[in-house]
Amino acid sequence: MNVLSETKAFGGRQLVVSHASRACSCDMTFGLYLPPGEGPFPVLWYLSGLTCTHENAMVKAGAQAFAAREGVALVFPDTSPRGPGVADDAAYDLGQGAGFYVDATQAPWTPHFNMWTYIAEELPGVLAAFPLDMTRQAITGHSMGGHGALTLAARLTGRFRSVSAFAPISNPTGSDWGRKQFAAYLGPDETSWAAHDASLLIAGGALNLPLLVDQGMADKFLNLLKTDALQDALAASGTPGTIRRQEGYDHSYFFVSTFIEDHVAFHARALKA
Amino acid sequence: MNVLSETKAFGGRQLVVSHASRACSCDMTFGLYLPPGEGPFPVLWYLSGLTCTHENAMVKAGAQAFAAREGVALVFPDTSPRGPGVADDAAYDLGQGAGFYVDATQAPWTPHFNMWTYIAEELPGVLAAFPLDMTRQAITGHSMGGHGALTLAARLTGRFRSVSAFAPISNPTGSDWGRKQFAAYLGPDETSWAAHDASLLIAGGALNLPLLVDQGMADKFLNLLKTDALQDALAASGTPGTIRRQEGYDHSYFFVSTFIEDHVAFHARALKA
Repeated sequence: MNVLSETKAFGGRQLVVSHASRACSCDMTFGLYLPPGEGPFPVLWYLSGLTCTHENAMVKAGAQAFAAREGVALVFPDTSPRGPGVADDAAYDLGQGAGFYVDATQAPWTPHFNMWTYIAEELPGVLAAFPLDMTRQAITGHSMGGHGALTLAARLTGRFRSVSAFAPISNPTGSDWGRKQFAAYLGPDETSWAAHDASLLIAGGALNLPLLVDQGMADKFLNLLKTDALQDALAASGTPGTIRRQEGYDHSYFFVSTFIEDHVAFHARALKA
Repeated sequence: MNVLSETKAFGGRQLVVSHASRACSCDMTFGLYLPPGEGPFPVLWYLSGLTCTHENAMVKAGAQAFAAREGVALVFPDTSPRGPGVADDAAYDLGQGAGFYVDATQAPWTPHFNMWTYIAEELPGVLAAFPLDMTRQAITGHSMGGHGALTLAARLTGRFRSVSAFAPISNPTGSDWGRKQFAAYLGPDETSWAAHDASLLIAGGALNLPLLVDQGMADKFLNLLKTDALQDALAASGTPGTIRRQEGYDHSYFFVSTFIEDHVAFHARALKA
């Protein structure tokens, strides 16, 4: 493990860390914000969207100000394996920068594209080197990262105390943001896809956590994100949860940063309850 | 004038605008944040540092949240003329991205590098198209942009109600961040340089405005920024002003974003007095 940088921010420390990942068979980089104090700190994961690295949300979402106030640590993982030996695709929405938080079973993706195992199993172990209280975890994410947050929260029962998302890909098995990638990474048998579809998981009653979703109504990707499918899944299963449709907001970090204070406060309530 | 994008943020509107600049003889781009409401809004200028465009502070400094709360508009100009026909230099600190807020008198810079006139005269006229109250202006900046903010505030008497800076280049005539660029843009006669040195201007009693400066004490450019010269100039001239030395903070946007709330509130008090 190699601390690439440490920067004081809001009284705490913004770290960037690289490590050799077994799950992804390459070096992986993540951001870790530690608030002021000694810890151990509860942890809020922030999973990013298509084309992002560990850095985008770390420098643009503005979460640290509120994490510092609440005494919560933030983890910003990368969105895929990377590097010259790692498979890639010319499209922005497949390959490097587009891991979709699944473990690939198909060539050429299998050796490296294991982001589910990386986030669910490997990175929590790496984080043991820092003053974190891993009995108190919450998770959020944006777009593809919202998909990751919802599916991880639904399937890793007991791991997270709360889940939220900004403009999540909510029903990837019914969207061109999902069908293309699941076919590539998981193969043509769609029965393997359902475990990575938040709406299907929630419709089946898998989520039993405080849930907050914000969705901009001027988001040009609304047809790909399928917020309505998520809302229907909550209704069908009687799962509590709040979906806020925000008039005029788009898919950008300006949308995320506008509402990040609410999300950090939402998670802090669950983490400190 | 061409509005390149408009994005809802914190209830207001983040615009990116391009226009044909007479001062710079090229197209120039700036960011403009309009808070919620009808206006006209008081204006806080944010001048950026070396290598930055109009975009860096707009997406990383986090000022919009507080500008929205205070009802203040934000202007984010670019830091130099740009484009294929514009002179440049291989160094990061000369040419495109490094206009230093002066009007060049030397070849090859003269036709385009007129950032003083652009900020002081031309851009205020362009802003007349928006709901701004130009009788209420304040100015801040980071690094090279802090130099610009201080020198513009000192020389444009009556234009600004308050001035602040993050890690400003405070004494460029005594620094390698200044001597190199002034020699290139203004020529070898150093008498022409003094009008662009905040410490010399302030030592001569030129500044009569509320002043706030934050300087990180882990800033690796401390020797180039010359905070002590600024402090001495304030003392020598009896000019009031607050310089805060912030232990542990570096030169990055994490430093800026940590203290931007204080700066926006500082300017809002002057703008709304």
